[in-house]
Amino acid sequence: MKIIVDAMGGDKAPLEIVKGAALAVQELNVNIVLVGDEKKINRIISENNLSDILNKNTEIVHTEKVITMEDDPVSVVRANKDSSMGIALKMLADDKTDEYGALVSAGNSGALLAGATLIVKCIKDIKRAALAVVLPFERKTLLIDAGANVDIKAEYLKQFGFMGSIYMKKIFGIESPTVGLVNNGAEKSKGTAEHVEAYKLLSETKTINFVGNIEGSDITMRPSDVLVTDGFTGNIILKLTEGFGSFMGKKLKSMFLKDIFTKVSAVLVKDSMNEFKKSLDPAEYGGAPFLGVKKPVIKAHGSSDARAVKNAIRQAKFCIDTKLVEEIEIQSQINK
Amino acid sequence: MKIIVDAMGGDKAPLEIVKGAALAVQELNVNIVLVGDEKKINRIISENNLSDILNKNTEIVHTEKVITMEDDPVSVVRANKDSSMGIALKMLADDKTDEYGALVSAGNSGALLAGATLIVKCIKDIKRAALAVVLPFERKTLLIDAGANVDIKAEYLKQFGFMGSIYMKKIFGIESPTVGLVNNGAEKSKGTAEHVEAYKLLSETKTINFVGNIEGSDITMRPSDVLVTDGFTGNIILKLTEGFGSFMGKKLKSMFLKDIFTKVSAVLVKDSMNEFKKSLDPAEYGGAPFLGVKKPVIKAHGSSDARAVKNAIRQAKFCIDTKLVEEIEIQSQINK
Repeated sequence: MKIIVDAMGGDKAPLEIVKGAALAVQELNVNIVLVGDEKKINRIISENNLSDILNKNTEIVHTEKVITMEDDPVSVVRANKDSSMGIALKMLADDKTDEYGALVSAGNSGALLAGATLIVKCIKDIKRAALAVVLPFERKTLLIDAGANVDIKAEYLKQFGFMGSIYMKKIFGIESPTVGLVNNGAEKSKGTAEHVEAYKLLSETKTINFVGNIEGSDITMRPSDVLVTDGFTGNIILKLTEGFGSFMGKKLKSMFLKDIFTKVSAVLVKDSMNEFKKSLDPAEYGGAPFLGVKKPVIKAHGSSDARAVKNAIRQAKFCIDTKLVEEIEIQSQINK
Repeated sequence: MKIIVDAMGGDKAPLEIVKGAALAVQELNVNIVLVGDEKKINRIISENNLSDILNKNTEIVHTEKVITMEDDPVSVVRANKDSSMGIALKMLADDKTDEYGALVSAGNSGALLAGATLIVKCIKDIKRAALAVVLPFERKTLLIDAGANVDIKAEYLKQFGFMGSIYMKKIFGIESPTVGLVNNGAEKSKGTAEHVEAYKLLSETKTINFVGNIEGSDITMRPSDVLVTDGFTGNIILKLTEGFGSFMGKKLKSMFLKDIFTKVSAVLVKDSMNEFKKSLDPAEYGGAPFLGVKKPVIKAHGSSDARAVKNAIRQAKFCIDTKLVEEIEIQSQINK
């Protein structure tokens, strides 16, 4: 089965995307379809001596059009349907012979969500696709929804709960993942009316190992394998976490540059520091899937380099190999 | 004018509260009324040799009852109205002669909010009282609402905008404070329908220097003097920030304890590190007011020590001296 890669999406496209695809072919034994500008892609292949790696296992579907960060997301369905992302989505949606297993893009997130929902479409009885992102704290915690839907409904939160559980089980091998609801207090009466109702639904759903409400102060300590929230709150949590990372980086840098003693200190602690920085780097964790869609659609970070693209392709491969979508289909019927 | 202090509220009450009151009397030239268990308070005064400081400028209003963290917040109005917090709130509300200027408590936040709203009551035409907290980043940023109201309405957000502006102007001397709306993207179409409407209202309000939507990733960089949000999102931002501080503390500690080189490094960087820790310490910034209430009600952190209590009392004194409430009353009529 082939993985479709949007070669033109992302801040460092197409160079880092093509290099990432080559890394994936080398290390992960996958077949790739690159969608994008054939001339540019071929130039990158020859300039970086990637033809031995890519020519055998990779096809290129040509288009010159790209959907940019400024384009209206929904334009991927009409005005920009012939962009690399639009064509990639259509190939995945129209595939009748299971030729294509999944799609990876580092492009416009809103357009990818719109395309996943409107072109590839949601699984039967799944109300909303949700973005599932692994937070870079002590141990892996899945934040779902990390930004796809701003509106909050108890029924969506319940579905995010079982979709997140399936993902953590399938992809990270956690047997009965714990699920918490992000809320402004521990008691079940906390939050809005939708939170109170969601607490009830999550408690009652047998296939969800619900551990209750999780407060903001507990998020860094990984109180559950899955953190359920609406896409507005999830977006704030995710971006605030990214912001903290760079804020701390700057603060530490100025701390170490203060005088000759702190400069010596910086040299002594360098290895430890790099390890620490790496643990907070989102590129380590690969892409983030839109769960609830009929086929795996993986969003790679907009600033993805080759290594991040490769990790996102690995994530896509895991989703295919573990039959993630099929399991969500089954659970969406059980938990209807 | 006297400042009423709930002597029994907080994890370290009454010891640290009484010591904090003594610090305030010494350093800030204020008169204090301590509400709480007279015997316990007097024992602390004598054991800590505070009688010279406190006896002249402090009265004690006796009650043995305390509202705990486990008590239902609304009980402060009825079942727990004779608790130290309940009596303190009633004294502030019933004061006809301007004897009492403000109230400080480190006790049950929910109860203090309920009491502020139901006993002291909101200013005319202010829909909701909001908790205003200074975030510990590069420069001072006021988060409003940091947790009082979980429901979001555009009209509330507009009022939080001008109340926060007045606070930053009066207390921190910022001439025309910039106001941003926490949202999941920069465009004015972002967020829920209430966010879109709030963007419009904030733009149209002449006394608010609105600078647009602020994303989570920008919060640590202080993109505006005032950050407007609903109390649910605000609670998550505030607590996640606190959690991130202690997470980083632990991470850095383990980084420095790794081997002999990193241990030497820790010694070299110690002063810098302490300064950095201090800048992230909420106790540095004193208490957080519930804005929109008829008289200043200041929430001190539950874990407040004497220094934090003193800083909260200083905050209360600033609110009185700068006629904060009177200014909010005027603006609530102008911006009706």
